[in-house]
Amino acid sequence: MTDTQFLLPESSIPDHWYNVVADLPRPPEPPRAPDGSALTPQALEALFPPALIAQEMSTQRWVPIPDAVRDIYRLWRPAPLYRAHRLERALDTPARLYYKYEGVSPAGSHKPNTAVPQAWYNAQAGVRRLTTETGAGQWGSSLAMAGQMLGVDVRVYMVRVSYDQKPHRRSMMQTWGAEVIASPSPHTAAGRAVLESQPESPGALGIAISEAVEEAAARADTNYALGSVLNHVMLHQTVIGLEAREQMALAGDYPDVVIAPCGGGSNFAGLAFPFVADKAAGRAVRLLAVEPASCPTLTRGAYAHDYGDTAGLTPIMRMYTLGHDFVPPGIHAGGLRYHGSAPLVAQLVHEGIVEARAVPQLATFEAGVLFARSEGIIPAPESNHAVRAAIDEALEARHSGQPRVILFNLSGHGHFDMASYDRYFAGELRDYDYPEAAIADALQRLPTVR
Amino acid sequence: MTDTQFLLPESSIPDHWYNVVADLPRPPEPPRAPDGSALTPQALEALFPPALIAQEMSTQRWVPIPDAVRDIYRLWRPAPLYRAHRLERALDTPARLYYKYEGVSPAGSHKPNTAVPQAWYNAQAGVRRLTTETGAGQWGSSLAMAGQMLGVDVRVYMVRVSYDQKPHRRSMMQTWGAEVIASPSPHTAAGRAVLESQPESPGALGIAISEAVEEAAARADTNYALGSVLNHVMLHQTVIGLEAREQMALAGDYPDVVIAPCGGGSNFAGLAFPFVADKAAGRAVRLLAVEPASCPTLTRGAYAHDYGDTAGLTPIMRMYTLGHDFVPPGIHAGGLRYHGSAPLVAQLVHEGIVEARAVPQLATFEAGVLFARSEGIIPAPESNHAVRAAIDEALEARHSGQPRVILFNLSGHGHFDMASYDRYFAGELRDYDYPEAAIADALQRLPTVR
Repeated sequence: MTDTQFLLPESSIPDHWYNVVADLPRPPEPPRAPDGSALTPQALEALFPPALIAQEMSTQRWVPIPDAVRDIYRLWRPAPLYRAHRLERALDTPARLYYKYEGVSPAGSHKPNTAVPQAWYNAQAGVRRLTTETGAGQWGSSLAMAGQMLGVDVRVYMVRVSYDQKPHRRSMMQTWGAEVIASPSPHTAAGRAVLESQPESPGALGIAISEAVEEAAARADTNYALGSVLNHVMLHQTVIGLEAREQMALAGDYPDVVIAPCGGGSNFAGLAFPFVADKAAGRAVRLLAVEPASCPTLTRGAYAHDYGDTAGLTPIMRMYTLGHDFVPPGIHAGGLRYHGSAPLVAQLVHEGIVEARAVPQLATFEAGVLFARSEGIIPAPESNHAVRAAIDEALEARHSGQPRVILFNLSGHGHFDMASYDRYFAGELRDYDYPEAAIADALQRLPTVR
Repeated sequence: MTDTQFLLPESSIPDHWYNVVADLPRPPEPPRAPDGSALTPQALEALFPPALIAQEMSTQRWVPIPDAVRDIYRLWRPAPLYRAHRLERALDTPARLYYKYEGVSPAGSHKPNTAVPQAWYNAQAGVRRLTTETGAGQWGSSLAMAGQMLGVDVRVYMVRVSYDQKPHRRSMMQTWGAEVIASPSPHTAAGRAVLESQPESPGALGIAISEAVEEAAARADTNYALGSVLNHVMLHQTVIGLEAREQMALAGDYPDVVIAPCGGGSNFAGLAFPFVADKAAGRAVRLLAVEPASCPTLTRGAYAHDYGDTAGLTPIMRMYTLGHDFVPPGIHAGGLRYHGSAPLVAQLVHEGIVEARAVPQLATFEAGVLFARSEGIIPAPESNHAVRAAIDEALEARHSGQPRVILFNLSGHGHFDMASYDRYFAGELRDYDYPEAAIADALQRLPTVR
């Protein structure tokens, strides 16, 4: 029996983040102001501390991780990498399957990797209060924990439908001392506007972002934190892939394909970006971003300029988008229900460096259950997208009779998503038709840039 | 900064369990049949496979762990041991606090440590079906996972109130392929008897045990598995303490006091029993079992012969007991709501080798929140009992100005217990008066032995 676990000591927590911008074939397009004009760093200062703005604009390949951040990373990092021997046997495949497990963080996902530095840089800049949004609650709970540890108060605008249906993620945020508000809320103009036209609105991630941004922009004592999409968020998440590269070396293996779920992009960027560096250096490795078929940003969206939020309060970025007011169908992978994508992930897809694939909901749950029954861990619905694609790659290896080394990001556990599994077993989950008309309609309203 | 993590490689998973019977000052009293007569090994064969009966009776110090069991342990073991630097700073204590974290198992607690070998020994004996009971669901989910991995069908009788209020633990069992039945149920005579007198009965662990035992005794194709109390369960859990002893050595430290929650006893035995060996060899170490003040088996119970279940279907054991039909108040640490204790833990308390302490509910949640806010992990309510006692020991060290090395068992996470934290924050949890009259009453009905 070969090894199952590939563990690194805490001394191997990376001391630098990897900035993929340094290895892009051409520089990323700078973001634009919401009115389409050129965006100045000053415009971002209402929302972010200088250090994060500098990271957002940085072209340096390596960015040092502050000791205080590494000190908190020690509570769960380096995250383990496992060889999925039991899943391999269940699939009867010659493929070698490896997964990086980010569910070991106290919040249960990869999100604290960026929540901690974001809270820390804000605290260093004297900011004592942050707003943010959350969908299913993985990001909100992560920022709540980080804020609590670093002396920063956190207010979370939580999408109403999750606020009502996922009370336990809300409880988690409160246990870590955060204030949680159902969005749309009467606290902001953006929220009031929605409530006026639709008092029973279930909310959406784009609306919650509008509320959090509006409040942070209006209050001098308050900054804003985003859990995905932005360059500095991708940067922070690269600890995942940096560790995984070392762990694959411990295993004496190197992936033929690196797979991660992709919503806003931080999950994918975290594992895959360090392998972009290898690819840029000539190494053969496929990088595969997996998204929901019902929210197919990378596979069916336009590569265009668009807002990050619904109300058009955020900067405009060049990305793959389904239109900023497109509302995705109610799939259970809440973390992947986002109209856009990280500009860096979008550019890599556009340049042909990263592949994208869309998978339907039922197939992802089928994969998650097979994973749970062989490896034990019950994955988050978002993570099931990577599990599905990894299984499909392993089955292809079986059909072709060729070994293949597959590495995927098991980005979180499903302990707060058991109701979704219930519905899956009860036959109440379904696949959705590709929402072609709604997307075509939303794409009519892309902003213009000057 | 000294280290935070003390990790062992998978090659350090123990290859033997430690049997504390070898280090007891006198041999344990054998169990009796339900009618009070001497119990023959044959009488146990309706419920357990021969290998587990042999372990139940064994006096050998070391019992080998089968390779197939260690192979599944590899999915999460060795479990990490952490130094709680941040909690120490929050308490401003000269104490050094260490915790062994068993929440890394896929089921989220220490329970799979015995679920896996129990399922395996049954499978080896050709048994393809197991019944068991579960309260809050930690044990039921662990046996569901183990059964799924080893090809054994599992039926879980789940205490009705948990079945209704903790649907997510139930979903977890179903994801791992188990059948879950609310108890009391119409499937058994024991269940029907309760339902007749009390159709709306919320159930109790003792009743669910009666149901699971009754079914297993009646069906030739079915055995029974218990998650605590019995000697072989204590034995299997010693992997916790065996690893922790090695990890403390890595830390260059040795505990002055070893602390774990105590309900049925497997949580406590798992961490503490290997230190009993040290104590027997003359080493100075305190061993502290922490129980709920409202279910104070070790601190206020009688050291007497009693049944393990409510209906009197199980063997009679000498233990600390509050009376087999005592129903503990509805505290949220469901895993500690048990009238009895493991005979081995009871004997160690009776002999003065182990100390016991009872703590009230609100103080345990206060401790759990402080832990979550400093170390990140949100503990299970059961684990909060150990956290409380560990904090109290650390505060004593502060008051006395003397360092103290404290090791405790963080036996599980609280992801399925967030409703309890909600109620704590809402001021809806309370402490209970010591249920003196109910206990005195229940102790009138202890069985007599011949």
